[in-house]
Amino acid sequence: MTKTITLAHGNGGQENNELITEVFYKAFKNDILSKSEDAAVIQDGTLAFSTDSFTVSPIEFPGANIGKLAICGTCNDLAMMGAKPKYLTCSVILEEGFDVETLNRIVSSMKKELEVNGAIVVSGDTKVVPKGSVDKIFINTTGIGEIEQKGISSNSIEDEDIIIVSNSIGKHGATIFAAREGIDFSTSLESDCASLWPVVKKLIDSGIKIRALRDATRGGVSAVLNEWAKQSDICIEIEEEKIPICDEVSGICEMLGFEALSLANEGTFVMAISKDQVDRALEVLKSCETSKEAAVIGKVTSRHKHKVVLNTAWGTQRFIDLPTGELLPRIC
Amino acid sequence: MTKTITLAHGNGGQENNELITEVFYKAFKNDILSKSEDAAVIQDGTLAFSTDSFTVSPIEFPGANIGKLAICGTCNDLAMMGAKPKYLTCSVILEEGFDVETLNRIVSSMKKELEVNGAIVVSGDTKVVPKGSVDKIFINTTGIGEIEQKGISSNSIEDEDIIIVSNSIGKHGATIFAAREGIDFSTSLESDCASLWPVVKKLIDSGIKIRALRDATRGGVSAVLNEWAKQSDICIEIEEEKIPICDEVSGICEMLGFEALSLANEGTFVMAISKDQVDRALEVLKSCETSKEAAVIGKVTSRHKHKVVLNTAWGTQRFIDLPTGELLPRIC
Repeated sequence: MTKTITLAHGNGGQENNELITEVFYKAFKNDILSKSEDAAVIQDGTLAFSTDSFTVSPIEFPGANIGKLAICGTCNDLAMMGAKPKYLTCSVILEEGFDVETLNRIVSSMKKELEVNGAIVVSGDTKVVPKGSVDKIFINTTGIGEIEQKGISSNSIEDEDIIIVSNSIGKHGATIFAAREGIDFSTSLESDCASLWPVVKKLIDSGIKIRALRDATRGGVSAVLNEWAKQSDICIEIEEEKIPICDEVSGICEMLGFEALSLANEGTFVMAISKDQVDRALEVLKSCETSKEAAVIGKVTSRHKHKVVLNTAWGTQRFIDLPTGELLPRIC
Repeated sequence: MTKTITLAHGNGGQENNELITEVFYKAFKNDILSKSEDAAVIQDGTLAFSTDSFTVSPIEFPGANIGKLAICGTCNDLAMMGAKPKYLTCSVILEEGFDVETLNRIVSSMKKELEVNGAIVVSGDTKVVPKGSVDKIFINTTGIGEIEQKGISSNSIEDEDIIIVSNSIGKHGATIFAAREGIDFSTSLESDCASLWPVVKKLIDSGIKIRALRDATRGGVSAVLNEWAKQSDICIEIEEEKIPICDEVSGICEMLGFEALSLANEGTFVMAISKDQVDRALEVLKSCETSKEAAVIGKVTSRHKHKVVLNTAWGTQRFIDLPTGELLPRIC
């Protein structure tokens, strides 16, 4: 660890893992925490429990605002454990002078998104701090969900399993970057921010046995695949030409040297399933608006254990590493 | 509502209630939320669920730091519903450049206080924001507790019930004020910050039937009693000379024109019980270090419904109102 915290410690990548492991996990060590993925599994495997603080800037952006994001973010963490979002708490830190009309707009987006999930806010907290102590508004949401499919875990992926992404990638990261830098592409680019429980529920109800599931937020698809490769002791090989990326995201990536695989998503997940389930899963995914561009992007092999390999369109290969550094702080 | 948020909207008093009611409760309206007190009661009355974000400044002060406070605060909210703190989430927002050694000190205080409660952190989140976007460190903790005594509620206080405070009041507020202003009283004044589950557990195990219980945080004892008077449709009369206040707190109050009854506490609660239980309750309370100055301070009457009446040492009387304005932002 360095002596002071850097922006990279919040990147969802390597330095972030270092901070979590060396400071927080070390002190709080326990069996549930060490097995915790997007959410902790408690009460004999019946409930999932997850927290997230949202600091996104700007607080309103194409496709969503910090309120919608705060509900999607925590509900999605529960959904990724196969859990139906049920009860949420909501804790808001406001800067003195914050505009009440904007606050009402944010809260009304939260209400709408709670309904999509069938979840309710049951307890809250409001703090107001003097001007300059916080930038506008930060929101924490913490949720409890009821697990409807047990055993979803990044430890249980098997050889020959298939890797699917639920939609075209990188839209949230690209949108925030464009909004923050005042870049106007005059396009329809907007954040993919969306609630994922409805589509996960459909997958479960269709009898799909999900091996692993993760929304590709900070650190993007790269971070998820790298974590899975390590935790399931496997190699993941993905095919560059199969990864769905829209033109706007490609454009921003080319122009600025970003890797779309490392850009944040807020309504797009990665899923590992056995190959016999792929056709049915794709059918379900494509029937939902939030995952209509779902695609198989690769598979599990035993080639380079603990590594993610990208096979390019030109037949070459390279490793995709866990993101390091931080290009886009306050992405969520 | 005003058009912009003011510091008073975070005071734990009148303006705070207004913000919560007109913005958050209005949007999130549901049966559990409307009955929620320090914590929501969920899962058929078996679990309590509560959240709190901590923004205290300075982050280290006599008697505690923001880490200890974050564990005590949320665990106490659960304890006040008769619930044993069990699972916590911990979400930390750090300012770029924050000192890692200080962070380790804070996290180690959290670990120690978790042990006092017999609770564990099962899931977390870490965000790092650029310099100036947050002042040093904010921590959210959200907890689930298992309810060991049901029916504790600020709606169920009855005529002739007795009001007890668990310790001498106002120490947290006075300590933060002194620390922030650089006032050195060269005294032993320190925050009362402490975990209350151990003493609540003792009360429950001694067969005490608790009517209402509330830690007197933001807004102090005044805020708790005013809320109880309204929600239980009663008058609460308290005797000035019976309220335990230490010399240091009295001194700060006299010097600065504060009302000790409105100063924040972080390890002191107010309890309503029937009069036949008072002797046993006081015996239990005085046997615990954190409540050894417990005292009966008043009782429930039907004199002025929805009001809190203070009988002074000189035989005069005045109403104690819900605090308004904000003298001490970032008290917790």
